[in-house]
Amino acid sequence: MKHLTDIGDCSPKQLISILQLAANIAQDPDHLVDTLSGRLLVNLFYEASTRTRVSFEVAAKRLGMHVVNVSALGSSVEKGESLEDTFHTIQAMMPDCVVVRHPDQGTALKLAEIADPGIHVINAGDGIAAHPTQALLDALTLKQGFETLSEVRLVMAGDIRHSRVARSSIRLLTLLGIGEIRLCGPDGFVPPIAELADGNAPVTCHDKLEDAVKGANAIMMLRIQKERIIDVNVPGADEYHHKWGLRQEHLELAAPGCRVLHPGPMNRGVEIASEVADGPRSLIKTQVRNGLYVRMALLQKLLT
Amino acid sequence: MKHLTDIGDCSPKQLISILQLAANIAQDPDHLVDTLSGRLLVNLFYEASTRTRVSFEVAAKRLGMHVVNVSALGSSVEKGESLEDTFHTIQAMMPDCVVVRHPDQGTALKLAEIADPGIHVINAGDGIAAHPTQALLDALTLKQGFETLSEVRLVMAGDIRHSRVARSSIRLLTLLGIGEIRLCGPDGFVPPIAELADGNAPVTCHDKLEDAVKGANAIMMLRIQKERIIDVNVPGADEYHHKWGLRQEHLELAAPGCRVLHPGPMNRGVEIASEVADGPRSLIKTQVRNGLYVRMALLQKLLT
Amino acid sequence: MKHLTDIGDCSPKQLISILQLAANIAQDPDHLVDTLSGRLLVNLFYEASTRTRVSFEVAAKRLGMHVVNVSALGSSVEKGESLEDTFHTIQAMMPDCVVVRHPDQGTALKLAEIADPGIHVINAGDGIAAHPTQALLDALTLKQGFETLSEVRLVMAGDIRHSRVARSSIRLLTLLGIGEIRLCGPDGFVPPIAELADGNAPVTCHDKLEDAVKGANAIMMLRIQKERIIDVNVPGADEYHHKWGLRQEHLELAAPGCRVLHPGPMNRGVEIASEVADGPRSLIKTQVRNGLYVRMALLQKLLT
Repeated sequence: MKHLTDIGDCSPKQLISILQLAANIAQDPDHLVDTLSGRLLVNLFYEASTRTRVSFEVAAKRLGMHVVNVSALGSSVEKGESLEDTFHTIQAMMPDCVVVRHPDQGTALKLAEIADPGIHVINAGDGIAAHPTQALLDALTLKQGFETLSEVRLVMAGDIRHSRVARSSIRLLTLLGIGEIRLCGPDGFVPPIAELADGNAPVTCHDKLEDAVKGANAIMMLRIQKERIIDVNVPGADEYHHKWGLRQEHLELAAPGCRVLHPGPMNRGVEIASEVADGPRSLIKTQVRNGLYVRMALLQKLLT
Repeated sequence: MKHLTDIGDCSPKQLISILQLAANIAQDPDHLVDTLSGRLLVNLFYEASTRTRVSFEVAAKRLGMHVVNVSALGSSVEKGESLEDTFHTIQAMMPDCVVVRHPDQGTALKLAEIADPGIHVINAGDGIAAHPTQALLDALTLKQGFETLSEVRLVMAGDIRHSRVARSSIRLLTLLGIGEIRLCGPDGFVPPIAELADGNAPVTCHDKLEDAVKGANAIMMLRIQKERIIDVNVPGADEYHHKWGLRQEHLELAAPGCRVLHPGPMNRGVEIASEVADGPRSLIKTQVRNGLYVRMALLQKLLT
Repeated sequence: MKHLTDIGDCSPKQLISILQLAANIAQDPDHLVDTLSGRLLVNLFYEASTRTRVSFEVAAKRLGMHVVNVSALGSSVEKGESLEDTFHTIQAMMPDCVVVRHPDQGTALKLAEIADPGIHVINAGDGIAAHPTQALLDALTLKQGFETLSEVRLVMAGDIRHSRVARSSIRLLTLLGIGEIRLCGPDGFVPPIAELADGNAPVTCHDKLEDAVKGANAIMMLRIQKERIIDVNVPGADEYHHKWGLRQEHLELAAPGCRVLHPGPMNRGVEIASEVADGPRSLIKTQVRNGLYVRMALLQKLLT
């Protein structure tokens, strides 16, 4: 395993080993402190980000790494430099790892293909294509809540079409043997299953949120990715919340103890009601914490 | 003492102990180097800042801390995330301290109230309400210049109404037993004393700068906070300087050796003449240096 | 040697000693790791930059230094603070080194003149005037490729008039005894030689790129500095490439093994063809790597 541009870069065994190490760090957060002392991570971000950029930065610093942040704003991109040339410039400075976020799908793979031998590329989100570390943290969060993933009946609801989180999570959770994934969202926001998963993946589509949540024991709500939507009408916030927002009444249709996930940032009162986001079933803060752990684990695995 | 959202969060004894430690650091700047090694400070800034953000960053790094900067620009705020959710995201990453600056008053307190047990919130300025570390550095600077604060007759002049520095400094200096505080500024820029200080505080209002400075031994000039002014006419720079700008002639009306302070950034030729800002009475650079020391002292006290 | 605002700040002996140390680091990149542990470098950038800012940041961190980045955007510059006052604020925080980039020529020298005793100012580019660390990395790159600089016949082509890289490199390479420097570029983009070099410098001007490259063994292409051009017509990209873009056919007119340099960022298909930029003669990535080494060497020399 040299890069992580998408879930398919790793064997199931490697993925499980990252998740196992992350679970160990969750038990003892000081476990790996300073094990990568003096190594260098560069965050190369072409899109806005708080949680992902900060999560990689904190993860790397806890491991003792140097971190340098580069954002497209205020950089040589303004002078017309190509993505590849910016990457070549950065890799000439001998980083151990380049974390890249970019609006165009395939960017991380493109950079991984031109990376020098000692340099590891991690995809922090490329267009609607992939966001593998988010998938890892979602998987860790689900694994912590259940004996085995095979008993998980997960609803993914909202803007699945423009969600790289959905794509990567469906791929990873299927690989790890999740019981069931039920997709639902407004017209135009759920692509054909064949675009998202293999033929034998346990993925189904549902027309209504009320139907999808029946008996589910985990629900992941997705934000409308307004910044990526070109050709579909985006419903108003109130109308959206009425038809597609996760509310307390949905949890009562779900299995007892059903967990709620959201990759963030949340638009409260749109795809999720505050009483649910802040309620006892919510694992949203746990997801962020787990994001730190899976990124520490991933860096440790890639760089040693 | 868990947070510092405003001066009132600390007992007088705690405030004095921070100032005492800062004075020790001023004597020996290497005193506390690396005592907080491996701890994490997050700067969460929703407003422009050079001196405060850099001061906290340098203070924390001298103490050996990791520092992560988050600015509203280029962050998930653009995707509609609420302040509270951004804060929850950040605190899920296990910082020891979150330093927050925000245009709305009460923000630091609001975040302190939802902070997890191990997380310390420091207010780096919230609207016109408070800027307690600036007050601490002003107090340290005055204490260094006088035998006792009771002999200090301080003029605060300019835009007091929109100044969080004035609010916090009046509160702290009163608590520490300052001799006298004389306020003056243009019509509409000085609020009623009762809004700024307790009834028994030694605070008076003056109509003219010439009157206020008579016999004063310290003068703190305040910038017009254009970014916070909505409903008052802002005078032109020349007119303002003529009536309210501190010039050499004012220092001749003051007590011999009268000190000059300014929290910065300065608008030279507006609220202060360059000959005064750069003159022998100016403590403006000392204030910045002391800002580093009080922030090191504060972090050390909060985190150990 | 206290500052590096321009090549003239150093004696030839000092310049050679920086280059020698950089060459040693190139042999053993871990040579100086953590030798400046706990020291502080501030990057004060008033213009967009990727490679230079990141290069200084990585260089300093490899040496063990703390690094704080300040950009004009989102800083107190927006509140009307002068450059000098921002610098005074920063130097009150006890940095060991301030690296400054600014659109106005003479900025670094102006700040060096008001710097406190322990503070070293390094020019990272000021207007069209100077960019001495770029000149050092170009010199190191050429020295690595030839037995002696006296055998180098270097073409500098493109927008020489607005290039601080050209100015600093001509000065340094002349001092180090380069064989020949041939300038060429469109009308209005090559200033009189007397503005760039001493009377006895081995510098000549040429009207056509085809003529200039004949027998040359090194070619440095320069980007059109659109952000600095006011009074000259900038030709279209295709027209420019046709007349002034370095293409494979030019390399065939040059000496065998002729090297190609470019300070970056490149505009491919404008001043340089991709087949040349990515070809076997290109030293463009080596330049970036060498930039890291010369900056490590410079910091080590200035601060110890």
